[in-house]
Amino acid sequence: MTNPVVVEITRGGRVESRHRGSALAVDADGKTLFSVGNVDQPVFPRSAVKAMQALALVESGAADALGFGDRELALACASHSGEPRHAALAADMLKATGKDKSALECGCHWPMSQDAMIDLARSGSEPSQLHNNCSGKHAGFVCAACHLGVDPTGYVNYDHPIQIMIREILADLTSDHFGVDNCGTDGCSIPTYAVPLTSLAAGFAKMNAGQGLGPVRARAARRLIDACMARPYYVAGSKRTCTRLMETLPGRIFAKTGAEGVFCAVLPQEGISIAVKCDDGAKRAVDAVVTALVARFLDTDDMVREKLLVQANRTLKNWNRIEVGTIAVTNALS
Amino acid sequence: MTNPVVVEITRGGRVESRHRGSALAVDADGKTLFSVGNVDQPVFPRSAVKAMQALALVESGAADALGFGDRELALACASHSGEPRHAALAADMLKATGKDKSALECGCHWPMSQDAMIDLARSGSEPSQLHNNCSGKHAGFVCAACHLGVDPTGYVNYDHPIQIMIREILADLTSDHFGVDNCGTDGCSIPTYAVPLTSLAAGFAKMNAGQGLGPVRARAARRLIDACMARPYYVAGSKRTCTRLMETLPGRIFAKTGAEGVFCAVLPQEGISIAVKCDDGAKRAVDAVVTALVARFLDTDDMVREKLLVQANRTLKNWNRIEVGTIAVTNALS
Repeated sequence: MTNPVVVEITRGGRVESRHRGSALAVDADGKTLFSVGNVDQPVFPRSAVKAMQALALVESGAADALGFGDRELALACASHSGEPRHAALAADMLKATGKDKSALECGCHWPMSQDAMIDLARSGSEPSQLHNNCSGKHAGFVCAACHLGVDPTGYVNYDHPIQIMIREILADLTSDHFGVDNCGTDGCSIPTYAVPLTSLAAGFAKMNAGQGLGPVRARAARRLIDACMARPYYVAGSKRTCTRLMETLPGRIFAKTGAEGVFCAVLPQEGISIAVKCDDGAKRAVDAVVTALVARFLDTDDMVREKLLVQANRTLKNWNRIEVGTIAVTNALS
Repeated sequence: MTNPVVVEITRGGRVESRHRGSALAVDADGKTLFSVGNVDQPVFPRSAVKAMQALALVESGAADALGFGDRELALACASHSGEPRHAALAADMLKATGKDKSALECGCHWPMSQDAMIDLARSGSEPSQLHNNCSGKHAGFVCAACHLGVDPTGYVNYDHPIQIMIREILADLTSDHFGVDNCGTDGCSIPTYAVPLTSLAAGFAKMNAGQGLGPVRARAARRLIDACMARPYYVAGSKRTCTRLMETLPGRIFAKTGAEGVFCAVLPQEGISIAVKCDDGAKRAVDAVVTALVARFLDTDDMVREKLLVQANRTLKNWNRIEVGTIAVTNALS
């Protein structure tokens, strides 16, 4: 099955490039509300399931013991832009458990945000593991391990107790299988497991509603989703799509992107969970798709709906700020 | 017609993302040697035809009058990385015709090369039009206009004499139509025209062999191709695919990328011209496709062939330099 074209880029009134993909929206009972493309094909969710992985931090009791609030929990769910406040908060989380950046096993890269990269270079500094977009998630793993009395060393490995705990959590939420056979290694070195969009959407529906979860997990899930919605800057950063969506719909959406064109979102009030994968891994495409899909589930008289549609279908400008084309979702999403 | 998957990205032994596209290779007489996907679909060639556009600089006599050598001609054909030598040479070209960077209408952006961007920020400087990847091409336009006694102001506009001259050149080379109806605006504000891969490949075949071209144009075309092959660093820059290909096969290939997944190449000795477009505009995909296609046309005992195949089909490493997957061309290219 070939997935349909879901996003088109135009220039001079012609389609210049096109992106294919699949997308799914389900209600709280897992009933399909919208589906396009092959939603049963396993995909690596990458960072889109960081909120699920962060359950280890909360369920272990570490978050409470260390006095973590919304900001820290949001950063534990983040693919942040490496802005100063992100790096500083990751350092604070590690300090709270008696560790420093040397405990992070995520690797080092310049901030994802070009502005933050330039500012860091201007200051004469070098990036550290703290600027890695996953540093908050990793700090959460280190905190959870320390709180549980487990040596955090090697916490990125498949057989480390933290990763075993996360596999159990993922399996419980999605009712899917997480093992060596569907495992790959993520950009930050932790395991990532290929599962269908159906499992991802079901997992977020469960995180949101708590149905079928034990009370500790249900409460932890609610707390993480609420923390991200309360502090969207710490889930991504300036000019980022996750942050933009959560700031456009305050308290009405949880949104989290993943590498290679994945996106998961929850509309808690409507009880709707969304999972998207663009075949080619394009960020610009999945950002447009998820924004348009969210708009679809808002009332037509909702003031925010038009704003989202403008974000999903927008003009593209060149270096001289001249309008040269558009990026827009196709009829496959209507 | 749906173009086939030409490149796959894997992780943990599974396909994570896939890129579709079309590709064409023709001989000196325009005979098809290889074709995949819809090669008759018009595509915007973007920067892949900069060498054609640079003919205005040479044919006008400006390049000779200003004493331009291989470096300047290569930069006129370049999408450079904004490294110090690129920006400095663009400034020198403008100075030769009595102008400075204020004559450039390409807009300003930070260097495409992350290393160059960081170095520039560290130095406390700001980027200028000279760092725009198109500054060499634009400097060439300014030089051509000045030499022809035409006011360069507005040289990016469809009706400026320089753009009219370039349209005539493009039409002659490709035997295709270039007008308002297939025109879009490029990232650097000059017109770009949608034409099929067949026209692009035929145009480069003509540039290479000179068949059917007047003597001035044929000589200018040869000179530009030779200049790019002699100075590949000035066509792109450090770690760039165009430069890598021309350094891997010194004097045996002309290679030029364009935005949104376009690539054109010429193997002068074999008399082969190649044009590629990836549907989704992905750079990583078109780079792999063109590299694999070039390898295809080398003798099996050519030492360089294996090197190209390794470049086209390579492992992907994460921030910790751990191998996490592969990028590889599919059977559609075999």
